[in-house]
Amino acid sequence: MNDCLFCKIIKGEIPSNKVYEDDNVFAFLDINPINPGHVLVAPKNHCENMLDCSEDDLKAMITVVPRIAKAVMKAFDYPAFNLGVNNGSQANQLVPHLHFHIMPRCDGDGHELFKGKASNSEELSEVAEKIKELL
Amino acid sequence: MNDCLFCKIIKGEIPSNKVYEDDNVFAFLDINPINPGHVLVAPKNHCENMLDCSEDDLKAMITVVPRIAKAVMKAFDYPAFNLGVNNGSQANQLVPHLHFHIMPRCDGDGHELFKGKASNSEELSEVAEKIKELL
Repeated sequence: MNDCLFCKIIKGEIPSNKVYEDDNVFAFLDINPINPGHVLVAPKNHCENMLDCSEDDLKAMITVVPRIAKAVMKAFDYPAFNLGVNNGSQANQLVPHLHFHIMPRCDGDGHELFKGKASNSEELSEVAEKIKELL
Repeated sequence: MNDCLFCKIIKGEIPSNKVYEDDNVFAFLDINPINPGHVLVAPKNHCENMLDCSEDDLKAMITVVPRIAKAVMKAFDYPAFNLGVNNGSQANQLVPHLHFHIMPRCDGDGHELFKGKASNSEELSEVAEKIKELL
């Protein structure tokens, strides 16, 4: 898309720190890393999020994630990583071009996941039924 | 694996709130949801995380994510969702059997992502070079 920041980065119209590229996928550093080596993996074809992305592009993206994550971990001796995808502004998606975050992690880096809370079996059973009806 | 909690859930030896199943994938509710409808998608073949998962299983998992996410969003009128995968204990992985978290989100639900901080272009360039060397 003409006015999409990530489409411009992918086309080279805006500079980025590219780490990987193939026919379907473009990967570059997040400029606001949660830890050094935080990489964004985006499809070259524009889509807004996982809901409007082609199956082929999703498969191409997920295939390169372990490969890139291994390189990031090895480069800086990280023991672990989170994969994160924010789909929609209410899920904190800032740029409306799908991207997977590869976020290297280590002990004591201070990052905390969303907190869940225990749900009882009756509630869970009702929720599962509602979802199954729509699948 | 014999002593794996999620392998037991997938085999039906431990009850769960299943929402979806196919030849490769088993999806069920997280018992500690960050919001109602929080689903875990796991491969039936045991692997610990994304680094030792087969490409076929990763592709099977990513293919069902949009389908399940759409059903969760529709069931409870959510406008957005996060996908999250914790790889390694330092990334807060609690059960050592790969699983994708589908976490529905809405305005004002109080969940916050990891905070990044701005990195300068020299730092970013050095980081990208180190990763590219290993890819």
